[in-house]
Amino acid sequence: MTPDTTPAELEQVLTDAAEAAAPLAASEPAVRAGWIRAVADALDAAADELVPIAMRESSLPEPRLRGEVARSTGQLRMFADVLAEGSLLEVVIDTADPDAKPVPRPDLRRVLVPLGPVLVFAASNFPFAFSVPGGDTASALAAGCPVVVKAHPGHPELSVKTAEVMMEALRAAGAPAGTFGLIQGFDVGVAALKDPRITAAGFTGSVPAGKALHEIAATRPEPIPFYGELGSLNPVFVTQAAIDARGNDLAGGFVASFTLGVGQFCTKPGLLFLPAGHGLEDRLTEATGGVAAAKMLSDKISEGFSSGLDRLRKVEGVRVLSEGPATLLQTTVPELLARPDEILEECFGPVSIVVEYGSVDELVAGVEAFGGNLTATLQAEESADAELAARLLPLLTARAGRVLWNGWPTGVAVSWAQHHGGPFPSTVGSIHTSVGVTAARRFQRPVAYQDTPDAVLPAVLRDANPAGISRRINGAITTAEVSR
Amino acid sequence: MTPDTTPAELEQVLTDAAEAAAPLAASEPAVRAGWIRAVADALDAAADELVPIAMRESSLPEPRLRGEVARSTGQLRMFADVLAEGSLLEVVIDTADPDAKPVPRPDLRRVLVPLGPVLVFAASNFPFAFSVPGGDTASALAAGCPVVVKAHPGHPELSVKTAEVMMEALRAAGAPAGTFGLIQGFDVGVAALKDPRITAAGFTGSVPAGKALHEIAATRPEPIPFYGELGSLNPVFVTQAAIDARGNDLAGGFVASFTLGVGQFCTKPGLLFLPAGHGLEDRLTEATGGVAAAKMLSDKISEGFSSGLDRLRKVEGVRVLSEGPATLLQTTVPELLARPDEILEECFGPVSIVVEYGSVDELVAGVEAFGGNLTATLQAEESADAELAARLLPLLTARAGRVLWNGWPTGVAVSWAQHHGGPFPSTVGSIHTSVGVTAARRFQRPVAYQDTPDAVLPAVLRDANPAGISRRINGAITTAEVSR
Repeated sequence: MTPDTTPAELEQVLTDAAEAAAPLAASEPAVRAGWIRAVADALDAAADELVPIAMRESSLPEPRLRGEVARSTGQLRMFADVLAEGSLLEVVIDTADPDAKPVPRPDLRRVLVPLGPVLVFAASNFPFAFSVPGGDTASALAAGCPVVVKAHPGHPELSVKTAEVMMEALRAAGAPAGTFGLIQGFDVGVAALKDPRITAAGFTGSVPAGKALHEIAATRPEPIPFYGELGSLNPVFVTQAAIDARGNDLAGGFVASFTLGVGQFCTKPGLLFLPAGHGLEDRLTEATGGVAAAKMLSDKISEGFSSGLDRLRKVEGVRVLSEGPATLLQTTVPELLARPDEILEECFGPVSIVVEYGSVDELVAGVEAFGGNLTATLQAEESADAELAARLLPLLTARAGRVLWNGWPTGVAVSWAQHHGGPFPSTVGSIHTSVGVTAARRFQRPVAYQDTPDAVLPAVLRDANPAGISRRINGAITTAEVSR
Repeated sequence: MTPDTTPAELEQVLTDAAEAAAPLAASEPAVRAGWIRAVADALDAAADELVPIAMRESSLPEPRLRGEVARSTGQLRMFADVLAEGSLLEVVIDTADPDAKPVPRPDLRRVLVPLGPVLVFAASNFPFAFSVPGGDTASALAAGCPVVVKAHPGHPELSVKTAEVMMEALRAAGAPAGTFGLIQGFDVGVAALKDPRITAAGFTGSVPAGKALHEIAATRPEPIPFYGELGSLNPVFVTQAAIDARGNDLAGGFVASFTLGVGQFCTKPGLLFLPAGHGLEDRLTEATGGVAAAKMLSDKISEGFSSGLDRLRKVEGVRVLSEGPATLLQTTVPELLARPDEILEECFGPVSIVVEYGSVDELVAGVEAFGGNLTATLQAEESADAELAARLLPLLTARAGRVLWNGWPTGVAVSWAQHHGGPFPSTVGSIHTSVGVTAARRFQRPVAYQDTPDAVLPAVLRDANPAGISRRINGAITTAEVSR
């Protein structure tokens, strides 16, 4: 076991991070992009050393972990590209209007600047992509914030080794000392969250832990934003027409999705709504029964899964369809509506619940039983279900951050349009995403410069636009220079 | 005195707001823009009725209040224009990439949707522009959120009349009942903030009140975003070269700014840093002495000002330069650094402090004594002060949401590039603005649709783009249609 960070070490990490804030904020975006690319390159180069440690500490298989390294470094490079391209700064320029009524309008130029040191609470279930070099880290570095990661206790050695690779790459690339730091220990993380030098925090984990940390962040003498990605049930709603067209494929796809990674994804489909009489029991049972046994991330998670599963199995109106390494339960919409709090509680691991509905009204009532989720999925046929889809999609939109059509929620593409977030309790802070380009916005604040001479302005706000970045000038987005 | 909203009335207002959420979210942006324009037109038409009530309740002069009506209705129309134009929805489309590595990328289309009912705590000092029809209301309506305003007790009759005008305009324009509601009473506002139907809140007021309400919002069973614009000192830093070039104008401009509106602006310059030996004492004293007496917004605010002024005058090292309807105090940077907590406490009203610095290092130390502010101003000469400006601007940027060059912070233009916000304690939520187009973002959350058929998508996300709105497609902003 790796020892907790000592108070003296924590003080040093926070001091270094605070001292790095100003030089990072002053760094040119293209230079910062170079530092981030250096981190990506170093992680790729170290994969052969890091992956075996990750396998030992997480019990996850090698291909999955290699894919995670590729996703993490791809994500870092995406941020580097966008940073160099300029969109991440959201430059907005309104030139002066001396004739504006009721008063003349000054020249205003707005750009996003980094908040300052960001604390990242790493997740257990993605040893790379939501951990030390993950999305929170990548987006905060892109924003220009020093990052302090509180390592997850599930992979302590991997966290230390990964941080060493990143810090060495940053040092060699010329980034300020203190751009990145690592701390270990629960109490140490809480102490860091309370420290006035920390200006924002990102978190991926459970609802109770996320809510408790959010309250600490919000009730500090100087409150800071806390972005928590907590838990999600990710319901999937299947129409009769979809069953008729491709029932067997649906059953197989569903089982593959809910058992992927031993069911240890925040996007695991936890409930599958099927029309009564769907006739897929055998196919579902067969697919679930064919799932191989696999070790979970940690003993603690394994124990949590066992007790959660025991609890679910004992809920009145819930029966077992298939059990083994993966478990499939079954209930009906009326049973769910009678005991929503018991049935709609996330159980992290390889279990899901088939919920049968007896009518479209019951299906709609099932949708309306849900609170906030990361995802909600509709499996339907475009022509046959046009009317039903028009009725359901606004209800799904009101409850989820990502709405899928004929897909499975596991697997989160990293791109401009991605949104990984959703109404509480799936996140604290539903207006933000933890995956995709706009994740950087969580760690940036706007500053507007009024009537400031060109030579004194940050380079991206000056009249000339030699790098050709996209800027909104007097309301319209353009790569042109400013004409006064 | 207007009676508090009763529990039964509050229940009705919240029920109506919750019921309006879905139809508002489903409304076409251009239609919603029409409703907002109808509100603006109705307020302009009712100005002759509303302004006299505002004069009586706030003691503010007619021209100022007429200007505020124009600002408020101009702001509503700005949001209507931008809403119809499409940028407020921030559409982002990434088309599918079946060849993407490590896994194929789905089609993802992201749009901002409204959060739901928004609670607005109105401010005392702007009976229109930061009250019932103010920036929080306008931006939330533009986002597609029902709005419930908690009226400020300083102008109860005006609040009721304004709300009546707005509700009648919305009704006549065809907006859903419940799009707008008004409540009165401190406890009623707190009850509304705790209600699960409220999904976000905006606030303009004092630091203690804002911090207390923020904690309520953050520690609810279902936490919600709380955007508080609290307090600000708005320091102004003047170089020797600026004194040499235009000292008399600076003295006059400063006094006009800190006494504007009886000093009752959140952007009032509360401190003016001048080089020792500036020689402007007489000019400052004369200008301050020439300020006419005027009634403050309320007896409570007047009493708060008196006690704050008494407190400031008694601080060691602070002396009175000029007193009367407006008061000018004086101290030095070493005195300020010896007692920062006593000197750097906002006093709402017509008072400001001249702070003399003995060297550039003292000036820099003075800047570094500040925490978060809405604004920070540098009065300098571009050629003579190039080096000093390069040193100071990053320090001002780190501390303020708006950085002014050779201007005065009072007066906030409403436009795309404006940012009215800043690090704590000037706001809770420094990444957001309460003025300008992007204020709407506070009340919107993203939703991404994955692989969803064109016909089922919200109109703005479909391949065709008949309205020609700006969308980011595969990373680049364009008004073109999507080619698959």
